[in-house]
Amino acid sequence: MSNLYLAVIGVGGVGQAFLSQVANLPSTLRPSLIFVSRSTKQLYNSSYSAVNASDLQSSSSKLLSLSELSSYLSSAPGKTILVDNTSSQDVADSYPSFLSAGVSIVTPNKKAFSSNLKLWNDIFSAVDSSNGKALIYHESSVGAGLPVISTLKDLIATGDQVTRIEGVFSGTMSFLFNSFAPADGSGKGKWSEIVAQAKDAGYTEPDPRDDLNGMDVARKLTILARLAGLKVQAPDTFPVQSLIPEALASAKDSSEFMQRLPEFDGEMEAYKDQAAKQGKVVRYVGSVDVAAEKVKVGLEFVDQGSPIASLKGSDNLMCFYTKRYVANPLVIQGAGAGGEVTAMGVTADLIKALERLR
Amino acid sequence: MSNLYLAVIGVGGVGQAFLSQVANLPSTLRPSLIFVSRSTKQLYNSSYSAVNASDLQSSSSKLLSLSELSSYLSSAPGKTILVDNTSSQDVADSYPSFLSAGVSIVTPNKKAFSSNLKLWNDIFSAVDSSNGKALIYHESSVGAGLPVISTLKDLIATGDQVTRIEGVFSGTMSFLFNSFAPADGSGKGKWSEIVAQAKDAGYTEPDPRDDLNGMDVARKLTILARLAGLKVQAPDTFPVQSLIPEALASAKDSSEFMQRLPEFDGEMEAYKDQAAKQGKVVRYVGSVDVAAEKVKVGLEFVDQGSPIASLKGSDNLMCFYTKRYVANPLVIQGAGAGGEVTAMGVTADLIKALERLR
Repeated sequence: MSNLYLAVIGVGGVGQAFLSQVANLPSTLRPSLIFVSRSTKQLYNSSYSAVNASDLQSSSSKLLSLSELSSYLSSAPGKTILVDNTSSQDVADSYPSFLSAGVSIVTPNKKAFSSNLKLWNDIFSAVDSSNGKALIYHESSVGAGLPVISTLKDLIATGDQVTRIEGVFSGTMSFLFNSFAPADGSGKGKWSEIVAQAKDAGYTEPDPRDDLNGMDVARKLTILARLAGLKVQAPDTFPVQSLIPEALASAKDSSEFMQRLPEFDGEMEAYKDQAAKQGKVVRYVGSVDVAAEKVKVGLEFVDQGSPIASLKGSDNLMCFYTKRYVANPLVIQGAGAGGEVTAMGVTADLIKALERLR
Repeated sequence: MSNLYLAVIGVGGVGQAFLSQVANLPSTLRPSLIFVSRSTKQLYNSSYSAVNASDLQSSSSKLLSLSELSSYLSSAPGKTILVDNTSSQDVADSYPSFLSAGVSIVTPNKKAFSSNLKLWNDIFSAVDSSNGKALIYHESSVGAGLPVISTLKDLIATGDQVTRIEGVFSGTMSFLFNSFAPADGSGKGKWSEIVAQAKDAGYTEPDPRDDLNGMDVARKLTILARLAGLKVQAPDTFPVQSLIPEALASAKDSSEFMQRLPEFDGEMEAYKDQAAKQGKVVRYVGSVDVAAEKVKVGLEFVDQGSPIASLKGSDNLMCFYTKRYVANPLVIQGAGAGGEVTAMGVTADLIKALERLR
């Protein structure tokens, strides 16, 4: 068995939950933590001996650049797995060089897999040419701990053909629409009020526009579409309906945006009423039509009795229609956001990587 | 990289689909087939060179006993994975000796994991003491290719606590009740007629009593309960409601059973009516209450709007309630039977084993 080393970038909500899950792994499986960092601090040593994440705050280690970190990790006397718990584009951009240096990567960071197609190709070429030495796992990049990526990969690896993927891919959007237009026809307030409540409860990003612009969903659909075989160039190369009213695109900050959002409640109310007249409800849905090579994100009217309409809370729901699951899709549903469940996907991926590398 | 060898027992519906999926794996991953068998034929050679499954019928290889097979496979010049595509108790009983000899196992065979607890313990002790040399994967033992076992294992391995598992675990039962008592209140015939139709369409076992006795569901619940930490001694040590009327228990064969089943249509109709009066529908449900250490299989009345009531065709549905997925469960839904989807679970497991062993 090889020595197995762990490096962790990012110790926010997901990172903390991840470290605590790793601390509870059986000692036979637990890798040795040799590097941990947050934005302005790093903790490591030149002898590759184990560090304690709780010493990070008081660390005076010299800050390594990403390329210095890659050298440091690839020189470790064993195999190293880098866990990137950030949503940083810079870190994501450096994955190909980490992988080429033989460092495996486990991450919930969507940016690596949903930015330009070149980065995607560079990442997977580096993995392929490593001959099993450098692995990459990213279950939590879509649906947090829900088994979405692994299931899609298994379908394809065993020769199935995915024809269509659709569902609700944002916990925030799910919460907003389940509250605004519940399947039972009851309403729970005006659109702007519900957005404000969600913001106050921490269910949206600090600036709700980062959810309402649809880009989070577009990034997830980009990942799934690419796994299903489509060459999606970037998440802004297919139709994504933003829920930021055009007139508010220039709002100078989130508080101006929130203040003026009530002016547009009528628009959302009209969608809701129009759907209700058809026995439907409005939802924010993403879909990939593989044969037609079409990816689409935006508002749709769905049947009141459908699984999407019946979602609760901030649950995600993903449907895979394939050559094998043809009449009824393979469906995965559950919480698609939150520190613990996102960390669970990362930790489960880490275990898979450890099992393969040891 | 080690030489990787594959041995396959059972080439029926699942076995054929599996072999065809394996034939389409990339050559870099595909193991060398050194043994294939069906009930009365075996094909292998003393030099461990690759065999062609299509030559099985005309093979004149001397039949090996299971213990001779174990010796043959463990002497191969590389690592070997045995795929058991049967539902044989004898083969299942021999897993501990294969594993102890360093042979990994991939299988949809429920018997190995749902018979007496000693066999379960022997299997997993053999895996543990092999130090990563002998692996076991059995995704398709519950829900065919649906990611049920892997998800439950990931939840537990990452420190989650499963509190409750419930759902519809039999494609046959799902089809029967979705037809007999659809959520929209329409009925599609008498119970005995629906059983007869299902039998004619091949949706039941050749003898429908093998589905109606509930033991298939009981075996699946045994597996899930054990994974969740309960020491279930055997699938007949908790309440399992048989849908074989007591008066028909002594029917001498399935045709006498089918002939007399209409006498009991009134009983099932009464369940249906009683449920309808409560705004519910009757379904055949399995559940594991982990805290109370209770496993239960039988008829339940579920809300007309619930996911279980809304199932279509012969779909399965599994809900996992855990410390993390607390308000809304993690749900997996889709076809839970059929050669192609069962084989998919087996092939995906094989890939995971190959990736770890190479």
